[in-house]
Amino acid sequence: MNAAAPSPLAAFRMRHGLRVRWAEVDPQNIVFNGHYLTWFDIGITEYWRAIGLPYPDGIAGTGGDLFAVRSVINYHASAHFDEVLEIAVRAAKLGNSSMTFEMGIFRDGERLVSGEMVYVNADPASRTAHPLPDKLRRAIDAWEAGTDRG
Amino acid sequence: MNAAAPSPLAAFRMRHGLRVRWAEVDPQNIVFNGHYLTWFDIGITEYWRAIGLPYPDGIAGTGGDLFAVRSVINYHASAHFDEVLEIAVRAAKLGNSSMTFEMGIFRDGERLVSGEMVYVNADPASRTAHPLPDKLRRAIDAWEAGTDRG
Amino acid sequence: MNAAAPSPLAAFRMRHGLRVRWAEVDPQNIVFNGHYLTWFDIGITEYWRAIGLPYPDGIAGTGGDLFAVRSVINYHASAHFDEVLEIAVRAAKLGNSSMTFEMGIFRDGERLVSGEMVYVNADPASRTAHPLPDKLRRAIDAWEAGTDRG
Amino acid sequence: MNAAAPSPLAAFRMRHGLRVRWAEVDPQNIVFNGHYLTWFDIGITEYWRAIGLPYPDGIAGTGGDLFAVRSVINYHASAHFDEVLEIAVRAAKLGNSSMTFEMGIFRDGERLVSGEMVYVNADPASRTAHPLPDKLRRAIDAWEAGTDRG
Repeated sequence: MNAAAPSPLAAFRMRHGLRVRWAEVDPQNIVFNGHYLTWFDIGITEYWRAIGLPYPDGIAGTGGDLFAVRSVINYHASAHFDEVLEIAVRAAKLGNSSMTFEMGIFRDGERLVSGEMVYVNADPASRTAHPLPDKLRRAIDAWEAGTDRG
Repeated sequence: MNAAAPSPLAAFRMRHGLRVRWAEVDPQNIVFNGHYLTWFDIGITEYWRAIGLPYPDGIAGTGGDLFAVRSVINYHASAHFDEVLEIAVRAAKLGNSSMTFEMGIFRDGERLVSGEMVYVNADPASRTAHPLPDKLRRAIDAWEAGTDRG
Repeated sequence: MNAAAPSPLAAFRMRHGLRVRWAEVDPQNIVFNGHYLTWFDIGITEYWRAIGLPYPDGIAGTGGDLFAVRSVINYHASAHFDEVLEIAVRAAKLGNSSMTFEMGIFRDGERLVSGEMVYVNADPASRTAHPLPDKLRRAIDAWEAGTDRG
Repeated sequence: MNAAAPSPLAAFRMRHGLRVRWAEVDPQNIVFNGHYLTWFDIGITEYWRAIGLPYPDGIAGTGGDLFAVRSVINYHASAHFDEVLEIAVRAAKLGNSSMTFEMGIFRDGERLVSGEMVYVNADPASRTAHPLPDKLRRAIDAWEAGTDRG
């Protein structure tokens, strides 16, 4: 996915609004880069809710738990205090035991940040990777295909 | 304790150094006020370590768990990026089930912040208050009196 | 204000919704105490917007800047991941150069946290206190009295 | 650099110690993934100090300012509360206007996290990219080659 061009806002079914907090802005008057991962996490929480598997109980009910194994952020433009942004999330790739979200942060349709979050399904105790539960896979596929809308 | 004058640095046996992070500074070029509570928490963690009851296992070993019930911060002067500060902590009052730490943040001996943190000893499940365990009380008294050095 | 009973939710005209983030929750499964000051700050940002003086330009337009000089938080009950809360803010006292906000965090009308934030109007460069600008004072009085609704 | 194997601890001249804060740990009892970017930033701050160009004045004195344009984190193992870690930083690549730091977080020599931070030298006002200042380039080269120890 690094090589691919990031998707425009319209490619994301899941979008979640957010206003920049004062505590998230640094002396350069821009959002400190680490806060984008907090925002990615918010977007993914909303994703699980949208597909009917709210974190953590919905995911636990499918038989696993998810741990982040990789995150990538490309910073194209800065966000500032009090701006209203959109977090955009889509499941870009489902592997055997891992999955990749494509992430974006947009302001009025302009891409500020693009990135990805890769999670692996793992046993909480042993941290051993397990195949993604079928229930999780089906819920993601249905949401992204739009077939959950009947 | 609100009415009492805050203690000078010399009154604190427990002092812990800290350097201000970029992510803790806001567009006013000063540390965002909320981060002082994170620093208070660091100071109290070091306090438990110093008296021989490192959090959380040392405290759990005395038979309880501690929950914050009140925090007060008075901001006298600002901290800035990259400054080296001292977190100062002393147990100011031991009640039946609660205890009060007097807190200070100093830079080169100048008080930037004074405050207090009040904790109650409570059952983690029910959140019911219980008397402070004797082992905890003795360890605090010995540290503050300096008799642990004997 | 320490001695006074905290106000119920109905006493606050300014209420702002918020959902608890995963990154704000600690290993005790409760919100870390420092984040409440970030939430207080969000509530006060919304307060300035509501009274027509959005921070920072609206406040700067009245001729000053505001610095926190004191914060108090009383923790009555815990907030947890994904809960939807309300931040409640009211201007409780206007002094000559300082002002006090009474703060609350509520969940379904239950008070989780009560507190106060005291600000002083100060010159950004010298940090010398100045009287609260009349424009600021009038805007606060009108909002709290409801006379801004004409 | 994505394809290359991450460097072992011994490959990093710059190492900076850090203890995990309670506020950085989430309900899974592991450090929330976003905090690693805060730690990367701390490591890079120490890097600038080590090479004689402390941020921000030292960098400004070379004639530019640096903005993050990309961050990558690979999470190999988890960090936990109160653990003492090492942040490891090395300048892996100097381009015309951008530079790449290879980053690592280690615990007792075990790599917990590997990653990279890419910065571009840009005019603070226009955000236009400019060549890396020679003074900055020479300081980095000397540090990494060890010739500053002369």
